[in-house]
Amino acid sequence: MTNALMSNRWVMSERPDGSVSARHFRREAVPVPIPTREQTVVRNVLVSVAPHARAVMQGDTYRLQLRAGELIPSSIVGEVVAAGSAGPAVGTLVAGFSGWEEYSVVPSSSLRAVTMPVPLPNYLSVLGLNGLTAYFGITMVGAVTVGQTVVLSGAAGGVGHIAGQVARMLGARVIGIVSSDHKADVLQARLGFDAVVNRTSTTFDEDLRTAAPDGVDVYFDNVAGPLLRRVLHQMNKQGRVVSSGATATYDVRDRVDDGGNGIIVPMIARSLRLEGFLVADFAEHWPAATAVLHEWVTSGDLIVLQAVHEGLETAPTALLDLFTGVNVGQTMVRLRPDPPFTVD
Amino acid sequence: MTNALMSNRWVMSERPDGSVSARHFRREAVPVPIPTREQTVVRNVLVSVAPHARAVMQGDTYRLQLRAGELIPSSIVGEVVAAGSAGPAVGTLVAGFSGWEEYSVVPSSSLRAVTMPVPLPNYLSVLGLNGLTAYFGITMVGAVTVGQTVVLSGAAGGVGHIAGQVARMLGARVIGIVSSDHKADVLQARLGFDAVVNRTSTTFDEDLRTAAPDGVDVYFDNVAGPLLRRVLHQMNKQGRVVSSGATATYDVRDRVDDGGNGIIVPMIARSLRLEGFLVADFAEHWPAATAVLHEWVTSGDLIVLQAVHEGLETAPTALLDLFTGVNVGQTMVRLRPDPPFTVD
Repeated sequence: MTNALMSNRWVMSERPDGSVSARHFRREAVPVPIPTREQTVVRNVLVSVAPHARAVMQGDTYRLQLRAGELIPSSIVGEVVAAGSAGPAVGTLVAGFSGWEEYSVVPSSSLRAVTMPVPLPNYLSVLGLNGLTAYFGITMVGAVTVGQTVVLSGAAGGVGHIAGQVARMLGARVIGIVSSDHKADVLQARLGFDAVVNRTSTTFDEDLRTAAPDGVDVYFDNVAGPLLRRVLHQMNKQGRVVSSGATATYDVRDRVDDGGNGIIVPMIARSLRLEGFLVADFAEHWPAATAVLHEWVTSGDLIVLQAVHEGLETAPTALLDLFTGVNVGQTMVRLRPDPPFTVD
Repeated sequence: MTNALMSNRWVMSERPDGSVSARHFRREAVPVPIPTREQTVVRNVLVSVAPHARAVMQGDTYRLQLRAGELIPSSIVGEVVAAGSAGPAVGTLVAGFSGWEEYSVVPSSSLRAVTMPVPLPNYLSVLGLNGLTAYFGITMVGAVTVGQTVVLSGAAGGVGHIAGQVARMLGARVIGIVSSDHKADVLQARLGFDAVVNRTSTTFDEDLRTAAPDGVDVYFDNVAGPLLRRVLHQMNKQGRVVSSGATATYDVRDRVDDGGNGIIVPMIARSLRLEGFLVADFAEHWPAATAVLHEWVTSGDLIVLQAVHEGLETAPTALLDLFTGVNVGQTMVRLRPDPPFTVD
């Protein structure tokens, strides 16, 4: 490492004043530091591209706003190339959280071992934070049960397309909300959603009512924004909203602040519960949930959709594309081919 | 009744286009109909004045918007003057829901008997829907426990001033949010709130942080609006918001609709739960709750604040005053003196 191994990475070049665009990203090469006793150096194979990155660029959200010059955060999967004495063996495959970079130096304790013999992209989707978010949101927060009607926004996204299938596995009637007819076709034809509604349609409210004639029991929401209020008005008494994301607000959240004007009255009138959560809340259950999800993927009951872009240079474009409505499934960027899978 | 007993009442003269003002109310006299077998005629002693009335005048909220010519809705307490064969005895004191009128003709099954020997105003406050709302909101929805920090907005209002005392009875640290220093003084000096913060102060956020240095566990919210977001940012992980009202939104709710832009991200980041409810959700527990509240009032542990205006003609002014920040406790209008209390 003393030969100054260099790592390419993407940082935020400046704080966006409004919308994020390509000029807010800067690519740079930095030397990889020698790991301390508690650190591990990971050569990344894949990094994730998720709405979370844009949220933290645009304001104080799930963490304090990113500062100029800071790494764009993301999940990572890669191979250990060096580690302090407390770390994993060189050559081990691991998953963790760092950012858009070739080499990540992270606390060894923050890494999960890649133990399932599946293609590595699964560790950034169904077996990663998004799959766990989908699983815990449907099972623990939404407490979905057989026969319920579950509606999901952002249903074609990295979390939504898995959450819908988890709800279906529990015996719910599953209705997706998406932003294009192409996405609707994919969810219905390939993933077995009972119905899919396009939120950009002028007949959205009626379309949702037709798809959910008995009302909505659980709304798994990745979008927030005005869509939330519209769905609330079709919810059954004592229904639940699982707030998993708020993509509609990441770009405009500082502009309007009415403290939920449009949603509180229907929340009261229908005795609804809205609950936010983070996947970390359920950390003790991650191994069990990962095993279940792996089983479903292996059996073919759960289909994982992924958009894998090639090359670190594509990451900013891939992120911006998330918000223009073209992506289906989990978006990620590949930096190098999957290494061979070996078990200790 | 065939002599055409007349009843004075207040109706909505026209739908308000923006804010409600005096011109949206009209007083009229109508004949009192003969009750059917299932109906009871109540000569009202008191009618309540609550934000709910303004909400239903201004839009579809807890029910469909009031139409021009319809009675302003309210809780009532009065004496039975006539009833169908299935109804209560003439002379019985009853509490129910109808509106601002001298005589109400209502389904007999909707009336509760006045059984506690207390002044009748109690049946529109602590022993009425607002007292029950306070009780169930704190105990069942908020699930407040000893040692928690509970913050209440609209803390000097009909629901809030009782809810704060219920939380204190459960061993919580209780912090009120009010709109004037006068209200703050009353809550702290007379009702034993641990702290009271004025939301109109320029130092509100710091004041709340000083009052709740360990963060907020439960927020009992009667106001919604931008205040909600500000409190959310001081809540502890996995805290609960009990949505009991949304007075800040009744006047402007149709103007801004961002589906909770400002609140969803903090709800997720802090794993918060927000739950709306109606007192009707807990109807089976009303008798038990009323007994507890009566006990606390009798023992002096719970102090009830009431503003009783004299004469039906004062009702619209009393309602508009609710939103200008002068009221403390439950507002109501007296139509006649309390009749003597008799037990069957």
